[in-house]
Amino acid sequence: MKISPSMFIGVNGDDHISFGAGQPDLPPPEDIYKILGKYRHFKYGLVQGQDNLREQLSKEFKNSTKDDFVITNGASEAIDLTLRHLGREGGSILLHKPYYYSYVPLAQFNNLKPIFTETVKGRIDMDDFDKKVRDCKAVMINSPSNPTGRLQKIKTLKEIEKLCQDLKVTIISDEVYKDLIYERENYMLQGDQVVTINSFSKTFSMCGFRVGYLYSNHRDIIEGATELKTHTSMNTSIVSQEMAYEATKVDRSFVDRQVKIWKERRDLIYKGLQDLGLDVWKPEGAFYVLPKVKDADRTVSDLYFKYKVITYLGEWFGAPGRIRLSYALDSEKIEKGLKIIGNYLKDQ
Amino acid sequence: MKISPSMFIGVNGDDHISFGAGQPDLPPPEDIYKILGKYRHFKYGLVQGQDNLREQLSKEFKNSTKDDFVITNGASEAIDLTLRHLGREGGSILLHKPYYYSYVPLAQFNNLKPIFTETVKGRIDMDDFDKKVRDCKAVMINSPSNPTGRLQKIKTLKEIEKLCQDLKVTIISDEVYKDLIYERENYMLQGDQVVTINSFSKTFSMCGFRVGYLYSNHRDIIEGATELKTHTSMNTSIVSQEMAYEATKVDRSFVDRQVKIWKERRDLIYKGLQDLGLDVWKPEGAFYVLPKVKDADRTVSDLYFKYKVITYLGEWFGAPGRIRLSYALDSEKIEKGLKIIGNYLKDQ
Repeated sequence: MKISPSMFIGVNGDDHISFGAGQPDLPPPEDIYKILGKYRHFKYGLVQGQDNLREQLSKEFKNSTKDDFVITNGASEAIDLTLRHLGREGGSILLHKPYYYSYVPLAQFNNLKPIFTETVKGRIDMDDFDKKVRDCKAVMINSPSNPTGRLQKIKTLKEIEKLCQDLKVTIISDEVYKDLIYERENYMLQGDQVVTINSFSKTFSMCGFRVGYLYSNHRDIIEGATELKTHTSMNTSIVSQEMAYEATKVDRSFVDRQVKIWKERRDLIYKGLQDLGLDVWKPEGAFYVLPKVKDADRTVSDLYFKYKVITYLGEWFGAPGRIRLSYALDSEKIEKGLKIIGNYLKDQ
Repeated sequence: MKISPSMFIGVNGDDHISFGAGQPDLPPPEDIYKILGKYRHFKYGLVQGQDNLREQLSKEFKNSTKDDFVITNGASEAIDLTLRHLGREGGSILLHKPYYYSYVPLAQFNNLKPIFTETVKGRIDMDDFDKKVRDCKAVMINSPSNPTGRLQKIKTLKEIEKLCQDLKVTIISDEVYKDLIYERENYMLQGDQVVTINSFSKTFSMCGFRVGYLYSNHRDIIEGATELKTHTSMNTSIVSQEMAYEATKVDRSFVDRQVKIWKERRDLIYKGLQDLGLDVWKPEGAFYVLPKVKDADRTVSDLYFKYKVITYLGEWFGAPGRIRLSYALDSEKIEKGLKIIGNYLKDQ
């Protein structure tokens, strides 16, 4: 039986140790769901998204207004709408490897040819990037990255900003992990060429509610995405949007506490994998790590079918020979899982 | 200023009389939202849809199992996923005129060429249909129809079933108004070639929650739609799905009461428009009526900007020279609106 990511999404059983789907095990802040009991709005909302939510978001982005946002069914729909709009007349899109597994199908669904730039331990190589970006209509940047957990250097991000501005290449900056960084302050790509993608899923532990957004100061992008969404899904679930609105009011200390927990787990799994003697890049954000293993296919399959430990195949992310582990689960399970993986690898 | 449907979706202000967006003014049954206060599930759900909801749906369709359904962000996403899957290698899709305004853009977004069959007072002409369907990969059937409110004859529906079965043409049957019929029992298209589209929005007054589904016993359609959804939006909002699950348990008497109210309003608006001397087809289901007027463009624009009465332009639905009125609003407003329209038309 061939395994694939869609087998594991939404599988939240307790009988497995899941280093699979990337979602927080911790609950959202109570403030964001205590409104549900009195919630009484059932009618269509605005296709572009509810005003209160977009107004809150505009406070987070300098010089923006609520008209610069489209609220979507998670970051997935935000990326899909953006690429669907950009791909109307074809073209290519540059992806840095390893990449989030949906980028390639999303490019293909939307008439865009994926072009790849290799990275060095997850960091973009500007020489290769510079060469390849010139033939592209758009580039996807994902820092911190799923699946590597690596950050791009601020210097690199600024060079990309300038280069794409000069070339008039659209930058789609997938920032869903922007709040989960352990090594330095975040730097968010900005400027006329940038479409920022974000979501409430990871920061506020509400993946199942599916609220994301795209932000751009290009009228063309916002209008194109809204026109598409008018026909393809209409408004994002309004009760989900109301929860997201509540999330925008949550104190920053909630996020700080989450980050502290993720960082402890990061330290635990990084050290654990190093102790197993694996080639692994230090994760600097998000909650993923991408070690090299001898026979990745067999490892992922055996761990799942024989030991009920879910891991993802690096190949899905353009990283053959590696496996991806999400460490969004409690320390005890991480330790237990590492022990099983260690014993398994020792026997190979 | 050019007006378009997306201007009006989600505009629920009290300062207008809206014959615009097609959504019930009545609230949903209390049973479906009283669960919200204790709702505590925030994680990713299954991309194909929650098991409890799909199991309930399978009870409504003979010989179906939960595996034959995909739960979507409203009927819009169900249609989009179906067309996106079918359109991968191009082809044509047959639409009967007048059609729901999203069908044409959805066909175009998805690489399918829309072909049109004219109807006689909203009823499909089988001679023309038979001629045109032979070049098509798929046909969209919508009975009761938005925007005409007309039903296709059961005899016609059975002929279409047989013809498409013989030709191996996929029928996409948009049945979102299947419960809102005033003239006869419903007949739902069935068989191997049929993809049934439905939603909880209209029957249960929960448009803003965005829960719809597609049903097909073709593995290829279900797997294709699920694969697309894995990357383009992932699970439908799980709290919305839980409300939809509750809706499946609501007693049929709720729907019967709704239908009685819609029928009274239908009688009121149909008679009112006839009294104004307009050419109008008797609506038999849904909550729309599509009268002919002298200068449709100017009428829709004047009614909106001068009299704050929202109507939709027939042209958006492939029916130039007509305007669409939704009668999903209370009788008092219908009467007030009819008076304004009557006075306006008298002065032209």
